[in-house]
Amino acid sequence: MKTCDFVGLGFCSNDDLSLLPEIPLDSKVQIISHTIQGGGPAATSTVAAARLGMSAGFIGVVGDDDAGKRIISDFNAENVSTEAMVVRKGKTSAVAYCWIDEPTGKRSVAWSRGDSPELEPSDVSLELVSKARILHIDGHNPAGALAAVKEARKRGVLVNFDAGTMRDGVRELLPYADILIASEAFARGWTGRDNLEDALKVLSEIGAKVTGCTMGENGSMVYDGGEFIRCGAFKVKPVDTTGCGDVFHTAFALRYLETKDLYECQRFGAAVSALKCRKLGGRAGIPTRAEVDEFLEKN
Amino acid sequence: MKTCDFVGLGFCSNDDLSLLPEIPLDSKVQIISHTIQGGGPAATSTVAAARLGMSAGFIGVVGDDDAGKRIISDFNAENVSTEAMVVRKGKTSAVAYCWIDEPTGKRSVAWSRGDSPELEPSDVSLELVSKARILHIDGHNPAGALAAVKEARKRGVLVNFDAGTMRDGVRELLPYADILIASEAFARGWTGRDNLEDALKVLSEIGAKVTGCTMGENGSMVYDGGEFIRCGAFKVKPVDTTGCGDVFHTAFALRYLETKDLYECQRFGAAVSALKCRKLGGRAGIPTRAEVDEFLEKN
Repeated sequence: MKTCDFVGLGFCSNDDLSLLPEIPLDSKVQIISHTIQGGGPAATSTVAAARLGMSAGFIGVVGDDDAGKRIISDFNAENVSTEAMVVRKGKTSAVAYCWIDEPTGKRSVAWSRGDSPELEPSDVSLELVSKARILHIDGHNPAGALAAVKEARKRGVLVNFDAGTMRDGVRELLPYADILIASEAFARGWTGRDNLEDALKVLSEIGAKVTGCTMGENGSMVYDGGEFIRCGAFKVKPVDTTGCGDVFHTAFALRYLETKDLYECQRFGAAVSALKCRKLGGRAGIPTRAEVDEFLEKN
Repeated sequence: MKTCDFVGLGFCSNDDLSLLPEIPLDSKVQIISHTIQGGGPAATSTVAAARLGMSAGFIGVVGDDDAGKRIISDFNAENVSTEAMVVRKGKTSAVAYCWIDEPTGKRSVAWSRGDSPELEPSDVSLELVSKARILHIDGHNPAGALAAVKEARKRGVLVNFDAGTMRDGVRELLPYADILIASEAFARGWTGRDNLEDALKVLSEIGAKVTGCTMGENGSMVYDGGEFIRCGAFKVKPVDTTGCGDVFHTAFALRYLETKDLYECQRFGAAVSALKCRKLGGRAGIPTRAEVDEFLEKN
């Protein structure tokens, strides 16, 4: 099996996105633009790693339906290795229909998990995990993820945890995170603290090297055990914010391998997020490393 | 070319339908059930003709994309002849995404016409039209439809006009209608009369043999030149009302070939509409003739 510097494990889906003049309610609207592309938090994070120049592979589950075939071919088109993916025979893949309100960029999403059973520990290629530099997880497929993070810990692989939503099995994964960056909702919900600084302090007690949260258009905040470091988002008029968080997590971890300056990691992440927003869909707009560096020089 | 008793000409699309617990607004919901099936007013009317036992064919435009292939294969699976369909090379087909609010059955639709140019008069198989018993049009592809209705008039083919929406080119088609059944919005908008009876009287001056309108859950009303005949809808809990109007138009015209009792035509149409509502999508629920007859005996 190919060695990958960045290994993502989690949720992957086939996303069908339509940009609309408004979200229709008991009415009809004409589509402004439309695209179908792979989606899912860890999946899009992994594509971002490949675009940014890392060798990347994904571990996740699809069915052998059209959506599953498309998910795999989209990964391959992005040079993401799918050797370790699990294809469930006779089962359906996860799909998401995303309607984006053009004036505001807000998203309305109808999704289905499909009926493919989640990753079992035995489905996970520990060989792929053991040789990675970064293992990225999104809290989905927790039984498989637990096997992977244990292997990563044993081998000194950096575990990058995108803590987006509280769900069963996440609690057991948290202690294995090296970089734990949560959504605002997760940080508040998990800790019961409304104040984000308080919430991050509590989250940091889990023991990650870096604890932080993303705050959408307000940027990000990390806690280094002593102080809170804030970094704003770049001002852009977004076409579509799908995947903005996913790519931030990748960019932060990639830059963390290069520098331990956390503000620098946040700023790099913010640039990748801003550039992604230029296009419809979670992936089409993800920049190359050269594009990010050029953007950061100018901004 | 095969001879078809029922020839539909107009709009055809590939419909992607999701039944949802609510229509999401800047949020995510999980899909209850999902289906992809052909759609479009005249297209679904034509499938209804085939289900009800007529030989049926469709004249319309698709691109040579996946959606277009699916539209054609869905017709073929329903025994609708696609010999006279026009496939535009390198062009895209019409698609519609329909979100159905499960509690109310209300539909939110995002659609695209695709970029396939509409039917030209030279695209229309006048041979197919000339040998039909019913030519059904929905006001789409008006240039092609005009060539077809002129041929139908010449050959004594009954022209069944589903007047759903006012659009360019519809005015020229109206005088050729033998059965002109409008939506409430069309009847009111076209005539400028809020009162539906007044609107039907004005519409009847165009000269169709039968003038009427559909009124959703309130059934239908026709004007025979002397009196207004009302027929209620059957009470059902609809799963999805997509295509209810389309199948009514077909059923009305089919029964009109058998009897000139207009109330009987309305009641037959109402039964077909009610049975269609049992399933998600415009087509899955369309009944066979035997199912309609059995339903009418019991109701």
